[in-house]
Parts: sequence; C-alpha cells; structure tokens
Amino acid sequence: MTPYEVISRKRDGKQLSPEEIQFFISSYMKEEITDYQMSALLMAIYLRGMDYMETSALTKAYLESGNQIDLSDIPGFKVDKHSTGGVGDKVSIILAPLVASLGVPVPMISGRGLGHSGGTLDKLESIPGFKTNLSVDKFRELLKKHNLGLIGQTNDIVPADKQIYALRDVTATVDNIPLISASIMSKKIAEGIDALVLDVKYGNGAFMKAPEQAEELANNLIKIGNEFGKQVVAVLSSMEQPLGYKIGNWLEILECLECFAGKGPADLMEVTYELCSHMLILGGTAKTKEEAKEKCHQAIESGRAFEKFIEIAQAQGADISFLEKPEKYAAAKHKSVLPASKSGFITKINTYEVGMVSVGLGAGRLRSSDSIDPRAGIVMFKKLGDRVSAGDGLLEIHCDRSQMMERPLHRLTNAIQIGEKPVKPPPLLLKEIK
Amino acid sequence: MTPYEVISRKRDGKQLSPEEIQFFISSYMKEEITDYQMSALLMAIYLRGMDYMETSALTKAYLESGNQIDLSDIPGFKVDKHSTGGVGDKVSIILAPLVASLGVPVPMISGRGLGHSGGTLDKLESIPGFKTNLSVDKFRELLKKHNLGLIGQTNDIVPADKQIYALRDVTATVDNIPLISASIMSKKIAEGIDALVLDVKYGNGAFMKAPEQAEELANNLIKIGNEFGKQVVAVLSSMEQPLGYKIGNWLEILECLECFAGKGPADLMEVTYELCSHMLILGGTAKTKEEAKEKCHQAIESGRAFEKFIEIAQAQGADISFLEKPEKYAAAKHKSVLPASKSGFITKINTYEVGMVSVGLGAGRLRSSDSIDPRAGIVMFKKLGDRVSAGDGLLEIHCDRSQMMERPLHRLTNAIQIGEKPVKPPPLLLKEIK
Repeated sequence: MTPYEVISRKRDGKQLSPEEIQFFISSYMKEEITDYQMSALLMAIYLRGMDYMETSALTKAYLESGNQIDLSDIPGFKVDKHSTGGVGDKVSIILAPLVASLGVPVPMISGRGLGHSGGTLDKLESIPGFKTNLSVDKFRELLKKHNLGLIGQTNDIVPADKQIYALRDVTATVDNIPLISASIMSKKIAEGIDALVLDVKYGNGAFMKAPEQAEELANNLIKIGNEFGKQVVAVLSSMEQPLGYKIGNWLEILECLECFAGKGPADLMEVTYELCSHMLILGGTAKTKEEAKEKCHQAIESGRAFEKFIEIAQAQGADISFLEKPEKYAAAKHKSVLPASKSGFITKINTYEVGMVSVGLGAGRLRSSDSIDPRAGIVMFKKLGDRVSAGDGLLEIHCDRSQMMERPLHRLTNAIQIGEKPVKPPPLLLKEIK
Repeated sequence: MTPYEVISRKRDGKQLSPEEIQFFISSYMKEEITDYQMSALLMAIYLRGMDYMETSALTKAYLESGNQIDLSDIPGFKVDKHSTGGVGDKVSIILAPLVASLGVPVPMISGRGLGHSGGTLDKLESIPGFKTNLSVDKFRELLKKHNLGLIGQTNDIVPADKQIYALRDVTATVDNIPLISASIMSKKIAEGIDALVLDVKYGNGAFMKAPEQAEELANNLIKIGNEFGKQVVAVLSSMEQPLGYKIGNWLEILECLECFAGKGPADLMEVTYELCSHMLILGGTAKTKEEAKEKCHQAIESGRAFEKFIEIAQAQGADISFLEKPEKYAAAKHKSVLPASKSGFITKINTYEVGMVSVGLGAGRLRSSDSIDPRAGIVMFKKLGDRVSAGDGLLEIHCDRSQMMERPLHRLTNAIQIGEKPVKPPPLLLKEIK
C-alpha cells in the first residue's frame, strides 16, 4: 500500500478500506505522508465523497491518533452538547451550568471561533481571569467537584484532527459532511462522555445551508456516535438570523447574564431549553421534555443555574465581580448605530455576513495569529419579520478601533433586507432526530 | 484574491480567470502559496477539469516562471519532436540526427524516465561519457555547429513545471489533459523552436489509453502551440505493444545502431520516418511526405544519419568507440528467457506492465533518488499477432542482480497473452492532426 495508491483510488471514486484510511492517517502523524499528499486526498474526498463505512473508519483513525479521556470513575451519566456553529450562538454558556445544576455531569470541551462563527472558549476568556487551557487532571477534578468543566482541546486528544483541520482550513476542504462528521465525533468520543446532544444548524449563517444537508450531517453524527457506544440526539435549529441579539465575546456573556436573570431573548431560551431537556432525559433526571423544561425554568428562576455558573467561573480562575457587576467592565470605545434606510419589515438577514463583519471588528480571527478584541461585536435591535420605520436603529456595532466603523456599517446595510410585506421566519426548531 | 478563493472556485467547478491562474502560479514560485495548497488545487483541476482558456493561461503562467531560450540568431527553421511517452520508444535518438543531417536544425530538450516509460536522457547517458546536463550557451553552440543539440531541461526553463510536476507525481494528479498540455507545451515553447512534431501515443502502454483521449490531448497541444506562434503537427501512434524489440537504456541504444545500419525493426522505422517527414516538411527541405521519406531512407542508407549521430555524441563528450564497436560494452550479468507456456498467437501485450518490469529490473527509477542500471531491460522476441509454439522464447530479461529474476519473469508471464486465433494489431499510425 502506498500513499499514491490510496489517493488515486479515492480520486477515481473508489471506496477506501478501513486499512487504507488507518494507514494514511497514522503515516501522516508519523510524518511519512506529507501535507501535500494529505491535502490531495482531502480534496479527492471532498469531491468524490465517502460513504458511512469510510467515515466511521476515519473517525476511528482520528481517535487512535491520540488518547481518550477515561471518566468512568466519575459518577453519573455524563452528557455533553455540541453545536455545528453559528452567529450569536452562546447556548453552551447557559446550558452547561444549567444542566450541571440539575445533577447531570457536563464534561464540555469546546473550540475557538471558526470562520464567521464564534467559539465558546473565546467568549469564556473575555471574562477576566477565566482559564480554559487546563489539563485533563484539572478537568477531572472540576467535574468531580462541580459536575462541570469548560475547557479547550488538549494536545493529546485527537491530534490528527487538529493537524488535518488546520490543513482543511487553508485548502477549501472544510464544508464536507464526512470530514466534518469524523472531526466532530472523534473529539466528542475522546472526551469520555456517555451521551451527546447535537445542535445541527441550518440556514444562511450555518456551515450547512439547506435543512437536507443538516439532516444528512445529523444522521451521520448519530450513527457514528451509536457505533462507538454513545447515545446521541440531534436537534436541527435555524441559523437564518443570529441567535439572541448580541454577537461578540463579552457582549454574548452579557446576554448570558440576562438569560441567567430570566430575561433572555425568546429564541435563545427556546433553543437552550430544548437542548437542555434532551440532556436531562439522557442523564436520567427527567422523563419527558415537559418535565425537563419545567426543571430548567426553575433552575433559572431560583438562581441555581447562575450560582453554578459563578461557581465554575471562580473554579476556573475568573474574577466573578465582573459577572456580578458587569457594569465594571469597560465598554467598547466606539459604537455606531445603523439606521433603517426605509420603512417596512425585516425580510432577510445575511447571517454569514453579520458574522464576518463581527469577526472583522475584532470579535474573531481572520488568521490563527490574530488577537481578539473581547469588547468588539454587534448588538442587533431587530429580528426577522419585525416592523421598522425609516431611521430606526437596526443594530449597533461596537469596536475599539474607530477608523474601522465606515466599512462594516456599509457591509451590514447590504446584509439586512427591508421589504414591504412581513415574512414568517423559518422554524427555529425544525426537527429532532434520535 | 486569496489562494483559498481560487481553490474553492475550481473545487466548485468554476472557470478560473487568467489573473487567478497567474496569481496562483507566481505566488507558488515566490513560496507565498504552499505545496499543500497547490496539491489541493491540482486535485480540484484533475476532478473538475479546465477548459481551453484556462489551459492556455496555465501554459502562459508556467512560461513566465522562467526564461525562454532565444534561438532567433541561429539560422534555419528549427523543429523539435516530442513524444508523450511509451515503452521502447527510442525514436528521438534516430530521428534527431537524421533530420539534422538533412539540414533542419533540431534543438531537442528531453526528459528522464517517468513511471513505466523510458527517457531519452537516460538512454543517451548509457553511452559512456555522453553528457546531457549542458548549459544553454553550450546548447546554442552545438546547434550552430552541428544543427543539433540533445540536452536536458535546465533549471531556469519553466521552473514552475519542474516543481509542480514533482508534486503531481506523488499526489496522483499526472494523467490529466489540461495539466499534461501546459507542462509539455510550456517547455517546448520555451526552447525557442519554430515548429513541433508531436507523437501522441495511445494504448495500454501510453498515458492516454483511448484513441479519443489521445486525440483530445493532441488537439489541445496543437491549439496552444499555434496560440504561441508555433506550427504544430501531431501523429497519433499505437502503444499497444513496445516499439521495436528492445527496452532498457543501453539495449535501446543497440537497437538505434541497428536502425542507423538500415536494419531497424519495421514498426520503429515506420514511426521514425513518419515523424521525420513532418519535420522535414515543416523545416522546408521537402514538399511531400513521399519526398521526405525518400530523403530519410537515403540518409540512413548513405550513413549520413549515423555520421551525424557520431558527430553529436562526440561533441557531447561520448566515447564513440562504444558506438562504433558496441561489443566492447559489457553485457548484463544475468539473462533469462521466458518460454511460451503453450502454442498459439500473441493476442495481447500488457505494455504498461512490461515497462514497469523493465523499471524494476533497473532500467528506470521507482524513486527520483534511485540509480539506473544501463544494462538492465527486456528484449522482446515476439510482436502482437506472431505465431508461437510452446517453449519458444517470448522475451529475454537482462539484469545485473540475479536474485531479481524470478518475480519479473512471473509478472511478464501474465503480461503476455497467447490465444488460439491470430489478432490484427491496432493501426500503428492512426491519425495525423494539424
């Protein structure tokens, strides 16, 4: 077996055997296969596809490139949540403490911002002192003590995915269902969880635009999870507009604080409760979604969820005075409101563009070496279907670099369409797949 | 414009603009685009294709990566020949001196063995002392003095092709018509020729298996040549069996000496005279193919062609005593004959496999660092359609490493089919395209 043969077989649309996939990934990790051979294979996979057998074998090869965390000595049925990524998606930060406060252990390993979508780690790190770069031992300790840990990927968990992801990111081979599936599931399986709830986004702000694509991805992810002995539930949710109103790292923490105070935006809370309810059912602390959602509601109302958030933030080094008195946090130096050019109804939001403008303002990275401005971002004032009058504020951009306000405002003008007739937004929660 | 955008546009089947192609190649040469991005683009081109506009732009970008040789001060209409490669194809070594001896300057820049097919440079270098690694100045000097120069590619002629070819070779992106076209034509245009005769091979020993593919390639090559102001004629010739009887570097030189002595195999001489006749017509020294072929015949009969060969070999450093008395050259240490397993007719020869076995014996390279055994190779005894009796010798393998005889003989048993009824070989010269 040679790298050339494996590449040419996939190039010609053949099914790769588990042995070929294992050989290619393990040789790559041993530096016996080069980056340029890997990127040729990735492009061939992108254009020729991989069937389920191949995707499963790739997940296994990814997993075998590193260590898996063993959480079997930690009591409880451990459940994590993963979102395929979107704009304004701060669900994890509310959901994880909420579910943990209700007795289900949540071992959460998150990522950073990627392309137009934000990352949980960047958001958490906008809280002064909050550390996510923790060891597996510290992670286990947090889980035992707090039922919760919020950390970033360590170097020894699925290193193959880490390297190959970096390559996909610069060779236009990211948005491919088999490659995404192996990347997500290998990391989640390696976490040592018992079950997983997936939030698979569809729409113009998601990596998968069409609901059918999102559903195909969800089915793939569930099948792989089950094969590796994990219970998996997937929810398809809309990313045709940002989730909630706030986009940007500290801005999203502020919106989470509103949620913990029982004043969260309806769409954000609906998605959060839906995902939490599946986690509680999987974790065995609720029998029905109704019962689970009622428990969630109580955890918010009683302040238990917020207490758990404060508890984990403190345990991970945060200065919690900023969470208790967020007005202490300096605001962005520059703010600018985008007014509606005419009266009518919001008929379309180019969510991808909104995400990219937010990244451009400093809320995300264009290159992995870029630094993040925790204060930068966008506050939306309107949702799809809302009525607006000419001159009303549509949104406000926040930035520490004033010279950068003109261009983003112009881009956002084109990203938000105002029409004469109201539109009905697509279903926020489209489908549930088990 | 970013590398990512160019890759993703080709990945999605879009036509790349000349500016995008120029940007990608020139940035690659400046090391601003990496090997892994280039190989991702190459695989996308392989699977999505390129139209003529793109192929022409790629040829131009290749050309602009280096210097072009200016031969305008050398008198005469300069004509070269290029073959797309096959097994036992030693035409260049007979043709170049023959045409030069008839007054048409032949500036020939050749390549080395590639995959299963041999290379003119390796064959010439099996003659003791023969140097092909010469400077452009020396090449011009040879041309002026001898009407002929036989050298290898220099570093400053189309360096982009040199680098990209090495990448294609290990990423399974070689046999693709647009990529082959740009690679061949950029090098030929850079040589400073006025016209080119192409021998485009089809059949199981050629890179293009089907005549239709070979014809598509020929049309592409002609169109590019014409666009850059070169006259181009293409001949489609069969590679369903090795050309002539001898395969391997020194073995092929021996067969060339037979040709110069007027005792060459019919198929080899037919292809050689056909290609020479086009060169003579392009070069203005003959009006019709009949006239040209008669001149070729006379050049061989009179010994003028051989004299020119000896003259250029001496000018390029060869010890010509080995050409005048080839029995001086030590034979391979080990020879072994493959007998026919049954009586019948030769119905099929897997020419690719014959070529690969020859490479395995030492006549070519499996890796670019491999050294070549000039004596290694195969002498065929039979042609397609020939009658054989059980036990007759089908071929003889030559090798300096005795332990290697079993496996190649076994592979060759399977490469040569004996059937009950005679078959008619496919047309040796299928078509001529201008």
